[in-house]
Amino acid sequence: MNVEYVIVADWGSSHLRAYLCQLNQQGTLTVIKSAKGTGVTKIEEQFEQHLMQVIAPWRKEFGQMPILLSGQVGSTLGWKEAPYLPCPVSLDRLATSCLTFICRGHPIYIVPGLSCEIPDKHSDVMRGEELQVLGLLLKHEKYQQGRQLICLPGTHTKWVLVDNGEIQFFKTAMTGELYDLLTSKSVLIQKKTNIFDADAFKLGVDKANSSSVGSFSHNIFSVRTKQLFGELNQGNACSYLSGLLIGSDVHAAIATEQWNISDITEVVIVGDEHLSTCFAMALESQGVQTRVVDEAEVAIAGYSGICNSLFLKDLTQTAI
Amino acid sequence: MNVEYVIVADWGSSHLRAYLCQLNQQGTLTVIKSAKGTGVTKIEEQFEQHLMQVIAPWRKEFGQMPILLSGQVGSTLGWKEAPYLPCPVSLDRLATSCLTFICRGHPIYIVPGLSCEIPDKHSDVMRGEELQVLGLLLKHEKYQQGRQLICLPGTHTKWVLVDNGEIQFFKTAMTGELYDLLTSKSVLIQKKTNIFDADAFKLGVDKANSSSVGSFSHNIFSVRTKQLFGELNQGNACSYLSGLLIGSDVHAAIATEQWNISDITEVVIVGDEHLSTCFAMALESQGVQTRVVDEAEVAIAGYSGICNSLFLKDLTQTAI
Repeated sequence: MNVEYVIVADWGSSHLRAYLCQLNQQGTLTVIKSAKGTGVTKIEEQFEQHLMQVIAPWRKEFGQMPILLSGQVGSTLGWKEAPYLPCPVSLDRLATSCLTFICRGHPIYIVPGLSCEIPDKHSDVMRGEELQVLGLLLKHEKYQQGRQLICLPGTHTKWVLVDNGEIQFFKTAMTGELYDLLTSKSVLIQKKTNIFDADAFKLGVDKANSSSVGSFSHNIFSVRTKQLFGELNQGNACSYLSGLLIGSDVHAAIATEQWNISDITEVVIVGDEHLSTCFAMALESQGVQTRVVDEAEVAIAGYSGICNSLFLKDLTQTAI
Repeated sequence: MNVEYVIVADWGSSHLRAYLCQLNQQGTLTVIKSAKGTGVTKIEEQFEQHLMQVIAPWRKEFGQMPILLSGQVGSTLGWKEAPYLPCPVSLDRLATSCLTFICRGHPIYIVPGLSCEIPDKHSDVMRGEELQVLGLLLKHEKYQQGRQLICLPGTHTKWVLVDNGEIQFFKTAMTGELYDLLTSKSVLIQKKTNIFDADAFKLGVDKANSSSVGSFSHNIFSVRTKQLFGELNQGNACSYLSGLLIGSDVHAAIATEQWNISDITEVVIVGDEHLSTCFAMALESQGVQTRVVDEAEVAIAGYSGICNSLFLKDLTQTAI
């Protein structure tokens, strides 16, 4: 297929982020324009109409180019279901397993999510993060070799174990969603602030680190009592809670039996800059080395990898 | 003081529950009438007006009898601050430490809350539950001897260690508040139900019991994945989440270093009937004996104890 322009979009529950890109013969995407829209759970199933409205100016100028979609758009709540690929899964299967159809002349490709299951122990799913993992491995080839533990913080943290370029296992933590709920709807925080207080954050991480058994619902009440006892105030209570939540998440991730943390050279963190720094601090407080990589670069590299496979694989070799 | 009628009221953040009682010479209160009002955080500081409005018919009939208040009404958010009594604290101090004042001719007594602090380790507070603990010890005298662990489930679970009638230490868990937030505002539950499914509850408890390190924010995502994998459905997901939350709370309580659970003959549970049964199931799944006592009886016994001390102590001995 002779493709010069492609639209790629992360279409999650809450947001649609679309990019008009140019694809060169080396399989690299260059972002030309971007546009925002609404998430799949908020548009009353008007998927086609909403997408076409968001990309209308690009359609007019560049015609019926392919559209590559990732995220919850492929879930049961989304436009069309792209079934999960079960782990272990080699990431070159993402492109070959895309759900494809034609809509108003555009070839549409929906990237499948991943699932993993250890019967009676753990079951998990992801949609969207698989593309960032693919992008990371393409952008930084050294991570295609050996065992890597990748942390993707966000509303739901994903901890992903990669072995020689194959996703073996992953775990989800509700850390970001819990932070949002507890800072806006609970008795713990009277007034949410966005000021980061590193000392209070560290105090929260230390509290989580010093808890040898699962005492999350006991520990979090300390956000309130420390304010009553004058050890925290309205200005730094959110940072302490953040430390407690991220510290607990990291504490549990380090102890996960599906990997041995001492075998991991460094945990690679892919996410928003502030959150990534927080996770790095919590991991380093437990003696774990980290490396933070640029989230935006990695996402475009992931879309490039898929486009490369879909449109150029007769010309160049896919990297993994 | 010659007192025949008394108003007692639990005035918390969300609700006011007032009772008109008759006090006999044996120091026992008999409830004659009850009335409901609004919690202290919801009446824009119109404490006097609101209380007088709720008890207006009783004032008219019986005059200016004493009013005994417990709960958040004595906090910094309430009517007047009744400072916390620090643990260890003997419960006979509750009556002698009441904050007293006169309002429209009524003698008002606000029961103080309790605080406990282990520097750099744990700080905690309660308001209202101390009265239930007092009531329990008065109603069931055997608990005045030796070490007792009392569990008071609710929006915030309280775990209270009593030694020879004295409160030594307590811990708070946000279990009920987390359940409310997660069932009504999170991605985990699409539709909240009140149907209790004992098998799903048990599954959640087992999940919490089998987690050897603090992995709360990792575990709770299983509420969603088990629905995606067909292991749970909309009808029983809430019960599973309840099992996970109560199981985690119990798991942490059992491991608390301020008591040795093997020294505790039985955990005494004082709370709402359904919640008490749930906590009993979770404790028994870990081999801990329990006894559930009637919450309403215990509360009135607590108020009786205070009235006894305040108004009749020249006639009868207070029990503790």
